[in-house]
Amino acid sequence: MPEFLTVLPPDEALAKLFEYLSAQPQPELIPAADSLNRVTFEAVRAPGPLPAFPRSTMDGYAVRARDTFGASQSLPAYLTIVGEVPMGRAPALDLQPAQAALIHTGGMIPAGADAVVQIELTQQTRDDEIEVLKAVAPGENILRVGDDLSEGETILPAGHWIRPQDLGGLSALGVTRLRVGRRPRVALLATGDEIVPPDSEAGPGQVRDVNSFAASGQIERAGGIPIRYGIAPDNFKQLKRAAESALAECDALVLSAGSSVSARDMTAEVIAQLGKPGVIVHGVAVKPGKPSILAVANGKPVFGLPGNPVSAMVIADLFVATTVYRLQGCAAPPAHRSVRAKITHNLPSQAGRVDYTPARLVAREGEQWAEPIFGKSNQIFTLVFADGMIITPRDSNGLSAGEVVEVRLF
Amino acid sequence: MPEFLTVLPPDEALAKLFEYLSAQPQPELIPAADSLNRVTFEAVRAPGPLPAFPRSTMDGYAVRARDTFGASQSLPAYLTIVGEVPMGRAPALDLQPAQAALIHTGGMIPAGADAVVQIELTQQTRDDEIEVLKAVAPGENILRVGDDLSEGETILPAGHWIRPQDLGGLSALGVTRLRVGRRPRVALLATGDEIVPPDSEAGPGQVRDVNSFAASGQIERAGGIPIRYGIAPDNFKQLKRAAESALAECDALVLSAGSSVSARDMTAEVIAQLGKPGVIVHGVAVKPGKPSILAVANGKPVFGLPGNPVSAMVIADLFVATTVYRLQGCAAPPAHRSVRAKITHNLPSQAGRVDYTPARLVAREGEQWAEPIFGKSNQIFTLVFADGMIITPRDSNGLSAGEVVEVRLF
Repeated sequence: MPEFLTVLPPDEALAKLFEYLSAQPQPELIPAADSLNRVTFEAVRAPGPLPAFPRSTMDGYAVRARDTFGASQSLPAYLTIVGEVPMGRAPALDLQPAQAALIHTGGMIPAGADAVVQIELTQQTRDDEIEVLKAVAPGENILRVGDDLSEGETILPAGHWIRPQDLGGLSALGVTRLRVGRRPRVALLATGDEIVPPDSEAGPGQVRDVNSFAASGQIERAGGIPIRYGIAPDNFKQLKRAAESALAECDALVLSAGSSVSARDMTAEVIAQLGKPGVIVHGVAVKPGKPSILAVANGKPVFGLPGNPVSAMVIADLFVATTVYRLQGCAAPPAHRSVRAKITHNLPSQAGRVDYTPARLVAREGEQWAEPIFGKSNQIFTLVFADGMIITPRDSNGLSAGEVVEVRLF
Repeated sequence: MPEFLTVLPPDEALAKLFEYLSAQPQPELIPAADSLNRVTFEAVRAPGPLPAFPRSTMDGYAVRARDTFGASQSLPAYLTIVGEVPMGRAPALDLQPAQAALIHTGGMIPAGADAVVQIELTQQTRDDEIEVLKAVAPGENILRVGDDLSEGETILPAGHWIRPQDLGGLSALGVTRLRVGRRPRVALLATGDEIVPPDSEAGPGQVRDVNSFAASGQIERAGGIPIRYGIAPDNFKQLKRAAESALAECDALVLSAGSSVSARDMTAEVIAQLGKPGVIVHGVAVKPGKPSILAVANGKPVFGLPGNPVSAMVIADLFVATTVYRLQGCAAPPAHRSVRAKITHNLPSQAGRVDYTPARLVAREGEQWAEPIFGKSNQIFTLVFADGMIITPRDSNGLSAGEVVEVRLF
C-alpha cells in the first residue's frame, strides 16, 4: 500500500496528474445559441469583416468632410438635404458637393460621403437645408469596413469558456453552429457499509450519501455530466467490479471512500488495480483533504475522495472540477467567485500546506468580515452554513485577526 | 414622450422598478439532486437531528472515560477489547468497566461508552487488551445526537441560491424533493429595420441580431429561460402586437431597440402602451446605457434595452439579471465574479454616474493590471475581447492609473 509516500502540494499534484492524462477533448457540433458555459474546441475566426459596410456611429448628416471645413457657429456651412438613409438598406444616393443626407446611428454611409456631422452640430434652416456649425474630418463618426474585425481574425481562441457576450459575437458574425468540447461524463461511486442512499431511512449506524451529491454539483458547475452509480459495499471484489464498469462507461471516475480506515484502504487498493499507470498521487498537502488519491487508469482520470464531506469538497474543487474543464479543452477555467474580507480570528497554519477554512461573511460597522466556522465536526453543514472558504496559502504560517483575506465563495 | 425626465442612479432605478413589481415567485417541486443553481421557495428544515446516533469522529477505541482518568505514557490504563463496532449497524455491545471496543470514524458509539480514544494514543498489548496512554474526557471524540443539526433547524432559508454543498446537505437529511422558485420565461424581442437573424446573409445596411443572444446568455446565467421572439420591423402596430403576445406568453419582456432614434422612440411608445402602470424609469445614470427603459405592464417587468450591444449588456446585467433572480424569489443573488487589478490608464468620469469600461487583464511583472479597451465603437467585440468591466462608482470623479480597482468579470 502506498501510504502517503509523497504528500504533494496541490499545484504539483495537479501538474503530475495532467502529465499522465492522455485523454483529449472530443468535439461536438452544437447550435451557437446553446453554447453558454461550453468550451470552444477550435479557434473561431471572423468569416468576413465587421462592419461589412461603412456605418454611421451617430445620428446626424452624412456629408463630404471638405464641405464643412472652416464651418463654425458664426460662419456655418450650408448644405442641401438630398434624402434620408434608410435603415437596413443601401442608400440610393451619391452625394455631390454641398449635399447632405440624414442618417441614423448604424445607417450605411452613402456613396460620396466621407463623414457624419452629429445632429446637435447642425441646424435645419429650410426643409431641404442645414447649417453645419462645426467642421468634421474625413472618417469622423464613421465605422469603416473591418474597423471592428478583419476577415479571418480570431474572435475566440480554442479552449475558450463561452460567455454571454460571446453568444452575441457569434451571432454578429452569422456563426450559428460551432464545435465545442464534449461534456465529460463523470461517474460517482460511493463506498462504505455505513452509507445509504438519500431516499433510505438511515437506521442506527447509517448515514446518507453526501459526497456523491455535493461532488455532482461541483462537476455540473464545471460543465461535466455527473452520473451517480450509487453505493458499493465494503467488499473488494464488488467495489472493483462496480468501479471498473463505471469507468468503462464514463470519461472519469470519482470514488468517495467510506470513513473507516479499512474502507479507505480498500478504495486505494481498488484504484491501484483499475488500469495503467495507476495511482499518481497519494496524499496532498492540503487541509482538510490530505488522504486523497489521484490516479490515471487507461488514460482516464480517477479520484479517491476522502469520506469527510468538507475534505471531499475541497479535493473535488481542486482536482475534479479542474480536470473536468481540462477534458473539455478549457485552457483557463473561469475564476472562482471570491470576495475580500477581514478575518475575525487568528487562523494558525503550517507552512508547506494549503488550508481551507469554512467561513461566514458578516457585516460589522459597514465592513465585510469573514468569520471562520470552527466546530467539532467536519460535516457537510459546516459548508452549508458557510459562505465560502478562507484559503491560507502554502507559504503562510497562518493568518492574523484583522488581516484582509480572499474568501473563495463555495 | 417621457424623454429622460428623471435619470436615476442604477440602485434607485432598480428599487423603483421593484416597488411596482407585483409578480410573486411561483413554486415548483423538483428532485433535490437537480436543484443546483435554483432558489429555495421556502425554508428547508431538518426533519430529524444529525447525527441521528452518537458517532465517533476518530479511528480508535470506544471507552468509558472514567476508566482512562489518570492514564499516561508511564502509567497507562489497561482495557479489555470486547469487540469491534461494525460500520452501518448498531453495535451489539454494552461496555462494562475496564472494557473497550474498536471503533472507526463514523461508527456508532456502543451502549456504556462515553468517549473515544484515538488509535494513536493506545498500544495493543495482547489480542484482547490495550494500553491507553492518555486520559479522555466524557464526550471526547464523539458527535452527539443533534450536534450537527437539531430537529426542525433551518438549514436553507427561503430565497437561497442552491450550491453544491447544499445538494450534499439535502441528501444527508433525506430531502429528495424540494420546492424551488419556477424559472421565469423571459421573452426577447429585437426591433430595427436593419436587424436580421444570425442565419441570414446580412446585406448592405444590415447587421445581425446581437442583443437577443447576449441577453439570452445573461438571462440563462441568472436562472431564467430566455425565449427569443425574433425581430419585429420598425412599425408601431406590428411591434406592439409582437410585444403584447410575447409578454402574454412569458413572465418578462426584454425589448432591444434599433439604433435609430425613430426606432428607439417607437420602442418607448410601445412599452408605454403595454399595460399599467407602464414606464417606471426612463433614463439611468450609467454609462453606457443611459437611454434605457424599465417598465411594468400588468404586474410583469418590461425592459427597453439600448441598441448598442455594450450598453445593452450593462443594462441587462444591472436590471434584467437581477429581476430574473427576484422572480425566482432569490433574496441575495450570487456575487459577480471579480478580480482586483491595477488600472493602466486614467479613467475620467463624472460624479453622479456609474461608468462601465470594458477591460482586458494583463500580467506585468507578476502583477495583474486592467487595461481599459477604448475604441471608436461600442460593438459587441469590445466585450468579446474584454475579460470584464471596470466599474467607476457613482461618487467618483474618475480613476487614476495605478489605482487598484475591482474588475467585474463579464
